[in-house]
Amino acid sequence: MAYQETLQFHTRGRSTLEITGEVGRVVQASGIDTGIAHVFVQHTSCSLLLTENADPAVRHDLETLARRWAPDGDPAYRHDDEGDDDMAAHARAVLAGCSASIPVGGGRLLLGTWQGLFLWEHRSRPHERRVVVTVCG
Amino acid sequence: MAYQETLQFHTRGRSTLEITGEVGRVVQASGIDTGIAHVFVQHTSCSLLLTENADPAVRHDLETLARRWAPDGDPAYRHDDEGDDDMAAHARAVLAGCSASIPVGGGRLLLGTWQGLFLWEHRSRPHERRVVVTVCG
Amino acid sequence: MAYQETLQFHTRGRSTLEITGEVGRVVQASGIDTGIAHVFVQHTSCSLLLTENADPAVRHDLETLARRWAPDGDPAYRHDDEGDDDMAAHARAVLAGCSASIPVGGGRLLLGTWQGLFLWEHRSRPHERRVVVTVCG
Repeated sequence: MAYQETLQFHTRGRSTLEITGEVGRVVQASGIDTGIAHVFVQHTSCSLLLTENADPAVRHDLETLARRWAPDGDPAYRHDDEGDDDMAAHARAVLAGCSASIPVGGGRLLLGTWQGLFLWEHRSRPHERRVVVTVCG
Repeated sequence: MAYQETLQFHTRGRSTLEITGEVGRVVQASGIDTGIAHVFVQHTSCSLLLTENADPAVRHDLETLARRWAPDGDPAYRHDDEGDDDMAAHARAVLAGCSASIPVGGGRLLLGTWQGLFLWEHRSRPHERRVVVTVCG
Repeated sequence: MAYQETLQFHTRGRSTLEITGEVGRVVQASGIDTGIAHVFVQHTSCSLLLTENADPAVRHDLETLARRWAPDGDPAYRHDDEGDDDMAAHARAVLAGCSASIPVGGGRLLLGTWQGLFLWEHRSRPHERRVVVTVCG
């Protein structure tokens, strides 16, 4: 059995946006007790990020590291049509990934106490992002 | 319900090979309307890559960055039995990942307009690669 | 159909621990012939790692690279409440990922010959880690 919804989020440029609650509501609507919740961004320049939900400094430091892993405006890039953050965003999306899968048990997301799911916008400017949530069980 | 096929691809050494169409055909053959398509390489030195399908410079630049993330022939490596690209390939496979999951809706892959699925060969020499596609719904 | 078990592992601090056998036993207990085995750590400072199971030097070299990707005690970090390895562990968890999905066929994990599944502890001190295994088919 599978249940699916497409959610839409507005990002304010490079930043993280917690979406744990929205995905949890889809799991509840699915009526599925045990299975997997699969979350997928239909884009190649933003990511889904499962990380600590308590101290926002964690996400600040991840941003610091991401700028090292894939620097903006690197002179080696050939793909720069949309600016200095264009190729960096694609590379960050590959490293952090464009999907996340979370177990479902007892009809809810089985996350650890400190785990939150975030949409990680890698582009500098605000974007509309589509997120497909599929619950299988 | 689950449907499964194993595909085989020949790679021409370090490079990317688009396999979106082949995976889409498995989804169609499954007859599953709504669910998840799970794609998995049975190897530890190549990856699956979901990235922009339009400008090939994106994949060129990802290759440039991957060589920084895991340099070939780094003097710190202990694992070098099969040459300078051996350990680098394993590390790149960890970073980019050996599986990809894509939502299925209306009987087809729910990819964004600019998303393509690529087999990313990390070894220098050509290889035969087995890819298991499982559709659950 | 979905079957789920939560496993618990004791780690001896930063290191890798093979859990392929334990996950295989859950697949067997599920009675599911064809589908996906989803493995998930309920933590943000350890990872699941699919890599070569033969030469332990591969995991030694991955550790060497991980220390470059996310150095311990980097002066740029703001999140350091639990010590020098705190933020580095979160960053390594993002890069290597906190879940793994493996195809199931003929009632067993369809891993390649050289693939093993490891729990990768990123914290310096030993921890108890919960791993949720969900088999869908």
